[in-house]
Amino acid sequence: MAKQADRYFEVHPWKIIEEGFDPDYSEVAESVFSLGNEYMGIRGFFEEGYEGDSLVGSYFNGIYERDPKGKSYKGVVDATEYMVNSVNWLSTEITVAGEKLELSKVKICDFRRELDLKTGILTRSFIWLLKDGKGIEVSFERFLGMENSHMGFSKLSLRPINCSVEAYVTVKLDFSIIHKAVNKCMWNTERGVADGNYISILGMTKTTGQKVFSSALINADNILSEETVIDQNVVGKSYVLDLKERENTYVTRVVYNTISKALPGSKEYDECAINFIKEIDNSKNLLKDTDYETEKFNTISWWDKAWKQSDIEIEGDEENQQGIRFCIFQMYQTYHGAEKGTNIGAKGLTGEAYNGNAFWDTEVFCLPFYIFNDLKAAKNLIMYRYLTLPEAKERAKDLDCNGAFYPIATISGRECCNLWQHASLQLQASTAVAYGIWMYVNITKDRDFLLDYGLEMLIEISRMLLSRGDYSQDGKNFGYYCVMGPDEFQMMVNHNFYTNYMAKWTFEYTISCLNEYEENGEARVKKLIERLNVTEDEIKSWQRAAARMLIIKDKATGVYEQHEGFFKLPHVDVDKIPIEDFPLYNHWSYDRIYRNDMIKQPDVLMAMLLHNSDFTEEELKANYEYYEPKCIHESSLSPSVHSILACQLKKQEESYKFFKFATRMDLDNYNRNTCEGLHTTSIVAAWMNIVYGFGGLRSDGKVPEISPQIPEEWTRYTFRFLYGDDVVIAKVDHDNLSVKTLKGHVVDLKIYGKDVAVSGKESKIKLK
Amino acid sequence: MAKQADRYFEVHPWKIIEEGFDPDYSEVAESVFSLGNEYMGIRGFFEEGYEGDSLVGSYFNGIYERDPKGKSYKGVVDATEYMVNSVNWLSTEITVAGEKLELSKVKICDFRRELDLKTGILTRSFIWLLKDGKGIEVSFERFLGMENSHMGFSKLSLRPINCSVEAYVTVKLDFSIIHKAVNKCMWNTERGVADGNYISILGMTKTTGQKVFSSALINADNILSEETVIDQNVVGKSYVLDLKERENTYVTRVVYNTISKALPGSKEYDECAINFIKEIDNSKNLLKDTDYETEKFNTISWWDKAWKQSDIEIEGDEENQQGIRFCIFQMYQTYHGAEKGTNIGAKGLTGEAYNGNAFWDTEVFCLPFYIFNDLKAAKNLIMYRYLTLPEAKERAKDLDCNGAFYPIATISGRECCNLWQHASLQLQASTAVAYGIWMYVNITKDRDFLLDYGLEMLIEISRMLLSRGDYSQDGKNFGYYCVMGPDEFQMMVNHNFYTNYMAKWTFEYTISCLNEYEENGEARVKKLIERLNVTEDEIKSWQRAAARMLIIKDKATGVYEQHEGFFKLPHVDVDKIPIEDFPLYNHWSYDRIYRNDMIKQPDVLMAMLLHNSDFTEEELKANYEYYEPKCIHESSLSPSVHSILACQLKKQEESYKFFKFATRMDLDNYNRNTCEGLHTTSIVAAWMNIVYGFGGLRSDGKVPEISPQIPEEWTRYTFRFLYGDDVVIAKVDHDNLSVKTLKGHVVDLKIYGKDVAVSGKESKIKLK
Repeated sequence: MAKQADRYFEVHPWKIIEEGFDPDYSEVAESVFSLGNEYMGIRGFFEEGYEGDSLVGSYFNGIYERDPKGKSYKGVVDATEYMVNSVNWLSTEITVAGEKLELSKVKICDFRRELDLKTGILTRSFIWLLKDGKGIEVSFERFLGMENSHMGFSKLSLRPINCSVEAYVTVKLDFSIIHKAVNKCMWNTERGVADGNYISILGMTKTTGQKVFSSALINADNILSEETVIDQNVVGKSYVLDLKERENTYVTRVVYNTISKALPGSKEYDECAINFIKEIDNSKNLLKDTDYETEKFNTISWWDKAWKQSDIEIEGDEENQQGIRFCIFQMYQTYHGAEKGTNIGAKGLTGEAYNGNAFWDTEVFCLPFYIFNDLKAAKNLIMYRYLTLPEAKERAKDLDCNGAFYPIATISGRECCNLWQHASLQLQASTAVAYGIWMYVNITKDRDFLLDYGLEMLIEISRMLLSRGDYSQDGKNFGYYCVMGPDEFQMMVNHNFYTNYMAKWTFEYTISCLNEYEENGEARVKKLIERLNVTEDEIKSWQRAAARMLIIKDKATGVYEQHEGFFKLPHVDVDKIPIEDFPLYNHWSYDRIYRNDMIKQPDVLMAMLLHNSDFTEEELKANYEYYEPKCIHESSLSPSVHSILACQLKKQEESYKFFKFATRMDLDNYNRNTCEGLHTTSIVAAWMNIVYGFGGLRSDGKVPEISPQIPEEWTRYTFRFLYGDDVVIAKVDHDNLSVKTLKGHVVDLKIYGKDVAVSGKESKIKLK
Repeated sequence: MAKQADRYFEVHPWKIIEEGFDPDYSEVAESVFSLGNEYMGIRGFFEEGYEGDSLVGSYFNGIYERDPKGKSYKGVVDATEYMVNSVNWLSTEITVAGEKLELSKVKICDFRRELDLKTGILTRSFIWLLKDGKGIEVSFERFLGMENSHMGFSKLSLRPINCSVEAYVTVKLDFSIIHKAVNKCMWNTERGVADGNYISILGMTKTTGQKVFSSALINADNILSEETVIDQNVVGKSYVLDLKERENTYVTRVVYNTISKALPGSKEYDECAINFIKEIDNSKNLLKDTDYETEKFNTISWWDKAWKQSDIEIEGDEENQQGIRFCIFQMYQTYHGAEKGTNIGAKGLTGEAYNGNAFWDTEVFCLPFYIFNDLKAAKNLIMYRYLTLPEAKERAKDLDCNGAFYPIATISGRECCNLWQHASLQLQASTAVAYGIWMYVNITKDRDFLLDYGLEMLIEISRMLLSRGDYSQDGKNFGYYCVMGPDEFQMMVNHNFYTNYMAKWTFEYTISCLNEYEENGEARVKKLIERLNVTEDEIKSWQRAAARMLIIKDKATGVYEQHEGFFKLPHVDVDKIPIEDFPLYNHWSYDRIYRNDMIKQPDVLMAMLLHNSDFTEEELKANYEYYEPKCIHESSLSPSVHSILACQLKKQEESYKFFKFATRMDLDNYNRNTCEGLHTTSIVAAWMNIVYGFGGLRSDGKVPEISPQIPEEWTRYTFRFLYGDDVVIAKVDHDNLSVKTLKGHVVDLKIYGKDVAVSGKESKIKLK
């Protein structure tokens, strides 16, 4: 069931280009042209409004609403939370000669929209052909502050080509925005404030009472008259502008948004919630001192720096070249450690799907990207789990466990998944946090992080794992009963390989950290042990559980059993499932999916990727060849994992088959749902696919190892990754691998299994 | 965790007596004093209304509303249905000297309420002490038509003891009744009609559009003036009555209710739905010809006949004597084959809990009672499943199965259980239907039923069972994956013993029926095979599945494994669970319940009871002793099954411990929720407990077998059961068993394993 591209944008190494506007792709384009800076995200909707298909989406990381689900069984969540659509700070109404600019109604030509990945600037232009024969060139430009993530910028330019004419332009901050999934506006506002060319408004979410303050300073040329617009949930300025033939008239706006995530009643709310009066003063001063062009330059510089560190160049494959840059661009847009306490939603800040909830993709797929590209972001990402440790401990209590049980889907740290079969049975969010801590510490050697934050999480996760697991009837084996591993097609099973393996590893890692630092007499560890009341007996109980953890392996074949009994399950030949049955959740009876040996996404193989060095190549081969044919890849993360492992097994063709257009999932709308938002956490898998797959990066040893190969289809590719004090640049063609560091520092790596000190001087290695 | 009695009613061999009114028990008493006649049921609420705790409940079998649940996965129901609270046809307002009679406000004494189980008559009386010193004796009487189940009767008597006074009495048919679970009135009505002392009104359910027509003829004495009351959803008559000192003034009402279950848009609706105008004529004639006292006599006679056939006498244990008669009374009230297409809700017609839905309790627990007490009811009960075969076939399609998948919870035949884990994973409703067909045919030899209805259901159930089952990976075993057996604490398991065993048996029974009648050249079978397109190959596929059905037994111990892997599950010592943890569903995290070897209700043992003769006493013993200690009896049906099997194993003490007050579950409010309605399908288990348990009745052989024992606590007991042309009466004391037939026919039975021809002449057998 190969997926089909639905190409709309032009292929270009650095740009996403839309030539001519096709209403059928309006929402796809809105998603693809989304801008974000972690703090906020804004879809590529038209500033002037659009009556065709459109999701006017403006999101702030951590601003959410609650949707009560009613009382249920203990441990089953009674409310979900969703990232709520917030203020439209780009709203612009334009009327000329009695015609309102709205692209489903007016006549236009020469439409072009362009997102420059190199600079982060989004532009759009067209010629508006009025009914009376007048023509006006309209252009928009927008970008976000990347250093100062509270800032957004927009510039409108109107240039009559065959007349001089008056234009009516209204610029607004608009909280009357509809959250599409509930078809309601979820905002109450304080009356907007207008003062000269300054406007501001304060919004409060209806159910959670969080606050978003939005303000703007507007500069318009050739003003004939102006007026203030204050309406329910809206504040704005209306201008009559004197457009002169063949001259640009500009309306620029510099926006400052600030949010308070604190909930009414909480301690933080009293301390931190936005004070409207104070914010007005603040924002006026700030906006007054902000120059549009300077900020544009800053954003371009920011991206320049990012690309120097993280670009992947592919020669001989323009499509994947554009694709992988789009992916890297999106990762930086979504997250770069700008704000404390944020996480990465499955769709980033680009749509409402998945409710803006973050999953265990964060640690398993996103974290490696940031560890090798942006350490501030990487640390921030794990710190999110530390900041939400109290919620994870509450959740553990709900589930009759000790310690901390991390949520499957979350914004605030609370569990938001109201399918108990996922929320209660999947332990991988918790073990992924442990894995993330280890990976971060292993690569960065950030001992302080481990001692101040990581170890506490590890202890609480180990506590949960001990209480959630059980010994078998005869006491011989420890393991997990009634769990759902990464393969969500095996719903409620015992001794899932992934779960048992990760738990065993978590116990062992926690114990080894405690031992190591205790031996070194580290005072912080002693204090922590006292504070958390960790006893010798408790540590022994972890040791015992780890030692007796049941890992089932068929000795004859070397295949690990995905769970107890998996080998005996009825067989389904996945290649014989008719294409029209996909996605199976929509076409098969819910329970039918779970009754056979078909798998949704890698489970045993996932563990083998995460703990690559624990397994021999032979073992990997046996398991890959057993499990791969059973997998239908209903998760978009699945092909990349298979591609990476196929690379390792030198199954080049298969590896490329799974990779193929991984980088273009959203650019070419492969899943036909890019309109709902980008597959942010899947996009990162494309990066992994190249760097871990073709590049052969492995990060589970003492130092990173690379073993690059090159797909036949490519001429050459270059990838980079941050390590130690420098950025390693690896250039691969069909004959050679060349490696050097960007700044010239010496960095120890393994390359094709051998220790290599990489320096600023390029070293060449013949390709195996 | 022994349950505690909460006794409120007096112990009496034939009556339920409430002396003095305690508001704390108002709803418990409403449930216990419910009247029903299968067609309709009415809780024992006060005719005059009551502002304390009360559920004014009036129900019609098969009149329901729909509650949409929103779109979900395929096979997960998108709406549930609930038996909706209908017209209050007993409504009576009484005002004397400016005081309205309402027992939470006025002063009364000598309150007494009495339900005579022997006659089916409910009476209530008290003296109303008015503020001005007047005293009035108030009495109510009510009963239902048992032959003509559309009829209800009520008589009010007012007798001033120290004055003559005017009374204002309003008698109403009231559709403004609130369905408590949704806190709404679910009725639209046509404007009520009043004509002399006749009133009527037509109600339509809001979401389903079913109709209930209610009419009454009222006779009041000493009328000074009268008036018609017509209000929204209400019709009635108001009287001013001239009460004379020490004289009874009566207000009687004869009620005729009729319902149409057809849904708008269906063929039946056009043909059968109630025509208001016609019903007015009908009911007027009918009510005119109905005499209150004659009908009272008819109801008493009906009960007299029922008791002759079904009474159980217990000497030396007044509490269980009262209890078992209450149970038998309730079974007859709930169901006696009065109406086509009805079933038995878990709470009968006595409350809103369980939504009035019927479960597989019907075939497994209720059907044996009716087979041995009331054949018309027994046949009707299985015919319900034939009439709802189309819905079961639809349900099978929803679940990607062939044939018929019977619902876990239903009113209309459609699945109403919106917990997919029960509705999709429990196959026992379907196998119970097969078992019910066999049991009915085996005891009654009703060959026509089998050929005209039963066989078609068997074929469709076998088809479902083949399609829902699977062969293991190696093709050696057939069985069921991802099922929940009767033990609902093992949610999603493979090769559940009960499920596999019942399926194997169903295949074999279906095939044997086909073979037997084909050999006999039965034309109806040939026609059926053609109509359903049953092929030789299909029959072979059932044969093969039955032959390869996996039944797992530990050869060393003789214990059948409840499901594959059960023996290895973590062990929980159920005796160590703190009492405050019960019921577990309220106190344990939902998923925690499913992760160990604790069981909710018998599973292996249930199959061993249903197919008793398939297993040796030794096997039964091994399994009983293995599984009993693991069972927490969270289902109210569980203790009886254990008691019956303990009897068989001569574990007398244990058997009595499980029985103890089984008959008094509702009379003594053991579960503290009798207020919500009676545990109708649990009540029948008390009958089974005595007749199958102490009486040792087994119905799975060629002829019924009895092997009576007597609990030490009893002096003597007598039980009866219908078989062949007669009623067998068995009297058991500590020395002897005496058996005879009621009418003197000769009936072949097995007694203590030996063939005995029982006749009208009492034969004595020394008790073993």
